[in-house]
Amino acid sequence: MGDGNRWRHLAQRNRGVEFVDACLRGASQVMLQNNPLTGLLILIGIAVGSIHSGHPRVIAGVLIAVAVGTATAILLRAHAPSLRSGLFGFSPLLTGAGVTTFLANRPLMWLLLVLGAVVTTVVTLALTTVFTTWGVPALTFPFVLTTWFLLLGSYQFARSTLDTSAPPALPRAETAAARLSGSVVPDVLEGVSQVFLVDSWLGGLIILVGLLVNSRWSAAFAVVGAVGGTLLAIAFGTGADAVSQGLWGFNAVLTAIALGAVLARPSGSTAAYALVGVVFTVVVQAALTTVLAPLGAPTLTAPFVIATWLFLLPKRTLAPIPQHERHSDGLLAALRPAAGKSE
Amino acid sequence: MGDGNRWRHLAQRNRGVEFVDACLRGASQVMLQNNPLTGLLILIGIAVGSIHSGHPRVIAGVLIAVAVGTATAILLRAHAPSLRSGLFGFSPLLTGAGVTTFLANRPLMWLLLVLGAVVTTVVTLALTTVFTTWGVPALTFPFVLTTWFLLLGSYQFARSTLDTSAPPALPRAETAAARLSGSVVPDVLEGVSQVFLVDSWLGGLIILVGLLVNSRWSAAFAVVGAVGGTLLAIAFGTGADAVSQGLWGFNAVLTAIALGAVLARPSGSTAAYALVGVVFTVVVQAALTTVLAPLGAPTLTAPFVIATWLFLLPKRTLAPIPQHERHSDGLLAALRPAAGKSE
Amino acid sequence: MGDGNRWRHLAQRNRGVEFVDACLRGASQVMLQNNPLTGLLILIGIAVGSIHSGHPRVIAGVLIAVAVGTATAILLRAHAPSLRSGLFGFSPLLTGAGVTTFLANRPLMWLLLVLGAVVTTVVTLALTTVFTTWGVPALTFPFVLTTWFLLLGSYQFARSTLDTSAPPALPRAETAAARLSGSVVPDVLEGVSQVFLVDSWLGGLIILVGLLVNSRWSAAFAVVGAVGGTLLAIAFGTGADAVSQGLWGFNAVLTAIALGAVLARPSGSTAAYALVGVVFTVVVQAALTTVLAPLGAPTLTAPFVIATWLFLLPKRTLAPIPQHERHSDGLLAALRPAAGKSE
Repeated sequence: MGDGNRWRHLAQRNRGVEFVDACLRGASQVMLQNNPLTGLLILIGIAVGSIHSGHPRVIAGVLIAVAVGTATAILLRAHAPSLRSGLFGFSPLLTGAGVTTFLANRPLMWLLLVLGAVVTTVVTLALTTVFTTWGVPALTFPFVLTTWFLLLGSYQFARSTLDTSAPPALPRAETAAARLSGSVVPDVLEGVSQVFLVDSWLGGLIILVGLLVNSRWSAAFAVVGAVGGTLLAIAFGTGADAVSQGLWGFNAVLTAIALGAVLARPSGSTAAYALVGVVFTVVVQAALTTVLAPLGAPTLTAPFVIATWLFLLPKRTLAPIPQHERHSDGLLAALRPAAGKSE
Repeated sequence: MGDGNRWRHLAQRNRGVEFVDACLRGASQVMLQNNPLTGLLILIGIAVGSIHSGHPRVIAGVLIAVAVGTATAILLRAHAPSLRSGLFGFSPLLTGAGVTTFLANRPLMWLLLVLGAVVTTVVTLALTTVFTTWGVPALTFPFVLTTWFLLLGSYQFARSTLDTSAPPALPRAETAAARLSGSVVPDVLEGVSQVFLVDSWLGGLIILVGLLVNSRWSAAFAVVGAVGGTLLAIAFGTGADAVSQGLWGFNAVLTAIALGAVLARPSGSTAAYALVGVVFTVVVQAALTTVLAPLGAPTLTAPFVIATWLFLLPKRTLAPIPQHERHSDGLLAALRPAAGKSE
Repeated sequence: MGDGNRWRHLAQRNRGVEFVDACLRGASQVMLQNNPLTGLLILIGIAVGSIHSGHPRVIAGVLIAVAVGTATAILLRAHAPSLRSGLFGFSPLLTGAGVTTFLANRPLMWLLLVLGAVVTTVVTLALTTVFTTWGVPALTFPFVLTTWFLLLGSYQFARSTLDTSAPPALPRAETAAARLSGSVVPDVLEGVSQVFLVDSWLGGLIILVGLLVNSRWSAAFAVVGAVGGTLLAIAFGTGADAVSQGLWGFNAVLTAIALGAVLARPSGSTAAYALVGVVFTVVVQAALTTVLAPLGAPTLTAPFVIATWLFLLPKRTLAPIPQHERHSDGLLAALRPAAGKSE
């Protein structure tokens, strides 16, 4: 790839190009890739999709947020190689998509967008400290946490308004199950674009091409996740509205890429493990939908994050702390330090 | 114990017997014991109790789940000695009890049961990584987390229905306090059987005998917990329904065994500490009941887990991080790495 | 300071004076100071403020709780220098303020107050184990957690009643924004006294003097936080009631002191970072207000704790765990331990 090499050289010499490169890689990191061309195609996919679905300000929010978030990381002198890989850009980018999707277009929204992008980078650094302990990535949780704060907080602000189809309500048992129909193919592609909170099969298609450019395994597992999540939701009997917007696909897409293609070498057993993870992601998404119902807030990518953490954390060599034996360093020592020795 | 030795030898040579032994020990581990005979008596207690209380499918769910969970741990090549001690069986077993108790008897329920048992083992492995950091056991939290996901998720699934006496509602201040009456003895025994989500004084009695077979201290503290939890709930003025089903006993039973008999050497000061833990468990259970009211979900054994964690985590030798002094490695170093040296 | 030295000598020789000194320092530690005179002025501020605002039992609760909490730490043989610095007193003190403010004056309230103070110390020790991992202080979270349990639990107890102006309700979008008026100065001073759940400008003034006695930077940042939090809340359009009670000030006060004055050396960049933290604290407080609305519980100082943790945890040298690369020690090794070597 001659163009790719030329770009890389340019990025090493020119600080402006380096910054653009970090932002593009940030866009690709949302899908767990590290490739500026993939990032470019993803941004095109978001632009096309956000116009296609009638929410053009999402692409504006995305571009502002990835730039502000990356700049904040530079200002805070974050780990440079990670910065260049886009690891400080992808969560702010999603915060930009979340704020422009779920808050009404008012002046305060744009202020909260910039604040949100800055804070998302701080939270990324904070969670890095926490998750380094266990050797798993923080994934998109900095985006989820920051955006939840901004959206939930807006209920208390007269100058910021939530724009959601699901206002606060007690959860009710689902009764009207979605049916499998011919529209399942666009639903699946929308499942890909919904990773960026965009509801557009066309956007989803372009994003898939972006994935394919960098990793065939990732593209394949993205499709597996989108198809699997959507079909499972129909099989379990979820409501038709969410299915037709691709809302049961995007978390499953991310779990499938993470567990099946990226964070372990693809193989039969890895694929089986990833599939169980995808099924569990759908259950977690349903559960979080219930939990967030009284608060009128969306799950964002929290179901992907939770399911993937739980499936990444296991280490084969570790033994559970026994619970049927007496510990010597805890409670007992605390309560009877002197007696402990004489016995 | 000639029979016990013969069984142990058989388990060492025959893989089938080894598996059954691990499952039986898994049943005993719910009560923080490691003894196949205790496990057998507990399973008999669940069987008798689930038939006695008119929910015979609970014993079926329990048997399927402990087998699936243990088999999953074998498949994932988990730490073998822990596996043989039943440490990968007890949480799935409870997931089996939870799913069959709280989900209506429909085809999807049995699928969710198997998925739940598999995932509970994955979550056990995941939480092992996390809790090894602090040297405390994950207790039954893998069961709590997985079962919450399955139950809360079912609100979004038309093909899975929650079977709960407490549908989603905003919490209201309690006004009708339960009174101490002659029925307090069966209530206390039901508090023991409710550890396995079974409402039967007869089942509770058999389970207590199972405890006694392995550890007199554990049996004694189980009674202390069941009596203490029930009496405290009456003293605080909780509603009569929950008291008469033994629902204020089971978390206190587990906290009492864990803090009083198993995780530290029994003594006067340990017993006093455990009693404070039992009182706090009742408060935590009341608080979680309030938190879960808008979601229409049960607390499961989360009150025991939270209270016991908080009482196990303290280490005498550790000093709190000072909050009135300037740290040199955190914020300051992050913001002024160069300036920090010259000053 | 001759009097200060004499007091210190007295505290070293007399155990009773040592205990009083630890309790006074505990009062000052709520504001992240370590000075008995500051603590004394703060207690005077609480006493004057609680009488001024018509809730005299708050000072009684505060005094009982700080003594019980400190005594519990002595009984559990906690780290002695931390004990003498008041690090085991400040969270119980706040639990005492929280219980007497939010629970009706009934016999069970006083029992829960003592239980709460004891448990807050246990929780302080437990969270010390957890937060030592990441080198950040637990701040007032032991108070927040314990008091949430006590308040939320009271909904299930007929003999304990919550005394809150915000009973459980689904969150609604705010429409009536508070306006900037001449009463903003008392509102700001009430923001300082509300750190101790007291609504009194006079109490706030005395507490500010207490801060000034120990640290001009802390007093300055307390004012910055109180003014900033209150003005931001008005700018965002929060309701007038909470503004006029100083409720948007107290979390911002604590974040400003922690990030701006105490936990890093004061400087221009530290101040800028602290200001972003203050803005974020207001957003977090609004979000938690929404989250707690269906449960009818107050945020307490959780917004300060969460925002300050997230702004303290970042360490410059740490790299995020890459999420676009294959890990060798996690999933893959777990699933294919033998195959992993041959490849």
